[in-house]
Amino acid sequence: MSTLSERILGAGAGAYVDRTVDRAYVHDGTGLLARAAWTEIGSGVFTDPDRRYLIFDHIVPANTSTTADLQQEMREFAAMTGMHFFEVGAGVCHQVMAEGRALPGEVIVGADSHSCTLGAFGAFATGVGATDMAGIWATGGTWFRVPETTGIFLEGTLSGAASAKDVALAYVGALGMDGATYRALEFVGDGAASLSMADRLTLCNMAVETGAKAGIFYADRTTRDYLAGFGIAAEPQVPHAGGYPDEIAIDLEDVVPLLALPPRVDTVCPVAEKEGLPVDQVFLGTCTGGRYEDLAAFAALVRGKQVAVRTVVVPASRAVLMQAVSTGVLADLVAAGCAVATPGCGPCLGAHMGVLGEGEVCLSTANRNFKNRMGVGGEIYLASPMTAAATALVGAITSPEEFL
Amino acid sequence: MSTLSERILGAGAGAYVDRTVDRAYVHDGTGLLARAAWTEIGSGVFTDPDRRYLIFDHIVPANTSTTADLQQEMREFAAMTGMHFFEVGAGVCHQVMAEGRALPGEVIVGADSHSCTLGAFGAFATGVGATDMAGIWATGGTWFRVPETTGIFLEGTLSGAASAKDVALAYVGALGMDGATYRALEFVGDGAASLSMADRLTLCNMAVETGAKAGIFYADRTTRDYLAGFGIAAEPQVPHAGGYPDEIAIDLEDVVPLLALPPRVDTVCPVAEKEGLPVDQVFLGTCTGGRYEDLAAFAALVRGKQVAVRTVVVPASRAVLMQAVSTGVLADLVAAGCAVATPGCGPCLGAHMGVLGEGEVCLSTANRNFKNRMGVGGEIYLASPMTAAATALVGAITSPEEFL
Repeated sequence: MSTLSERILGAGAGAYVDRTVDRAYVHDGTGLLARAAWTEIGSGVFTDPDRRYLIFDHIVPANTSTTADLQQEMREFAAMTGMHFFEVGAGVCHQVMAEGRALPGEVIVGADSHSCTLGAFGAFATGVGATDMAGIWATGGTWFRVPETTGIFLEGTLSGAASAKDVALAYVGALGMDGATYRALEFVGDGAASLSMADRLTLCNMAVETGAKAGIFYADRTTRDYLAGFGIAAEPQVPHAGGYPDEIAIDLEDVVPLLALPPRVDTVCPVAEKEGLPVDQVFLGTCTGGRYEDLAAFAALVRGKQVAVRTVVVPASRAVLMQAVSTGVLADLVAAGCAVATPGCGPCLGAHMGVLGEGEVCLSTANRNFKNRMGVGGEIYLASPMTAAATALVGAITSPEEFL
Repeated sequence: MSTLSERILGAGAGAYVDRTVDRAYVHDGTGLLARAAWTEIGSGVFTDPDRRYLIFDHIVPANTSTTADLQQEMREFAAMTGMHFFEVGAGVCHQVMAEGRALPGEVIVGADSHSCTLGAFGAFATGVGATDMAGIWATGGTWFRVPETTGIFLEGTLSGAASAKDVALAYVGALGMDGATYRALEFVGDGAASLSMADRLTLCNMAVETGAKAGIFYADRTTRDYLAGFGIAAEPQVPHAGGYPDEIAIDLEDVVPLLALPPRVDTVCPVAEKEGLPVDQVFLGTCTGGRYEDLAAFAALVRGKQVAVRTVVVPASRAVLMQAVSTGVLADLVAAGCAVATPGCGPCLGAHMGVLGEGEVCLSTANRNFKNRMGVGGEIYLASPMTAAATALVGAITSPEEFL
């Protein structure tokens, strides 16, 4: 049986296809560029606004007058086109889309590299450039080269101090930053079936860190139950029968807390190897590690204690924040000394809300640790929410095993 | 009987006195300047660190690498001196001090113009420059000219759509921005006794907008009960017998929702006169309007509804946020579509978290609406939390009377 990319795109790997795009979204950053390109096209046609989304997440609320001016222009553009608009405070675009706006079998594009996140629903979801987005707005579709697929077989179940983020770092470390260029990653096996939607979103999110075009889980009962929570009926997909040209296997039982060392996502080692390294900031948030389950896992470790270092928490969306408030997770985080900020990308891209100074070290639940990303001269270690919690409590890199 | 300023400073109005400072605090902005001046003094002496406070509030979390670098220097300075240090997320310095760190009869100085806030406790509290602060750090005291006092007689009680912020705008409008230069404002009368500590803090906060050196309430049972909540025993003070050289009277029954029009705090008119003016942003927060009572008043109006315009909510402190979480006020705000940000000054000073673009209009619960303060070309209307709520629901300036 074909891979899911082949089924959704309707052709074999390597073929070039024209395809209607089911959903397309931009954020406050790329939306501006897409609007400029769309204006240049000059057709004035904006297709299917009910399936187009503008989600403010990158610098919210605005950090400068210039940002505010540009965001005002984008509000006006959204009103003119009739596309869906999500104001300051809605959350990270990928998470907002994951809340009932991404379905199995769809072709979804976002003008952001981590749009592969939505492959967690059994969709073909990928990032496009702003010019591509302008073309999609104007015509309703775009072309794809159907990717070859790498199978990632997951066995066993996660337990103890290991989490989906550690699995993500494990496969990025195994494949390397260009180990799956333009390929699709399909997460399959009993281990894949055991993972929650939050786990799957985290795993698909980091597919692009291997150069992959997409990261995909087949829709199953977990997907169906999750979407039912949004009033959406969805059917499971029949998984690929196996026999990928390229395969790796990960036993979830063997996964330990991992770190990606600056400045590369694929330089991965066990947390234990860097234990005791002092950090200046802990950041819990983003499309990788800012979901409710991430906040809850962090809160479970810090509850009743005090963080020893400044800790910025940015819920991935308004819905995440609401759930954290209603379950007491937010109260635990605030009481432990965390600084909670507006849902969105937070300091992930170094624009505000926790930019690093020269030589400062941050332990972050985000997906990228490139040089200067969170501030000139800052260093970023990527890890799971549980590792972030243990590190926040100690003020130095610490394995969550010490607090379980 | 003497005024409270005369009693606390120990001399008649017009006299120059040297006085030990009971509490002194700086924030991330002025702390840097004070540290530079203190270093220049060169004595190396830092007096009474247990009564000196560094509270990060102005740009938290850091908005740039430069800010982060400077904040890191200040953390190291705090550790070196042994002064109290409040990390990112603690809240606005004046509010943090108001939470059990300001007592009746004390001399309190802050390196921020709104340090007059703490006069609400029957303290002599005022803002000093960074160089003065350096001298206080080095010697433990400073000089004051004992201010003349203006009596503000408050009668009746607040009700309906009127709030302490409206009373503040009323007296600033009545006195004008230089109407009480270097004077103390004493709030007295039955109406003063009827006000909560939150109300009193708001009234004292805006004293400096008339040029006043201090704004003062005499400690009474309300003060005593509030401080008892922090485990602090405090005695009521005997109020001034009356007969101030300068007096104004305000009947709280007559107060209506008011606005201060840009760009002056003393250009005050009823909200009704500007009703329908579209706004681009509503800001609920700051040392004037970000206390729990302010958030609760706003939430009572927006509960179960949706704001029509972007609305930034910044709790004045961690304690405020905690209370809002535990009472359901925060849930109401988030559910209504507000973007909640990290406790601190938020966008009040135009550094991040909701800076205005060219021509944008903001309805704000803060204390200043000077030109370009919240962003180049932005216009700020000052009002109460209830007026902010009504305005957020409509997307245009609206009196809360319409929602009561």
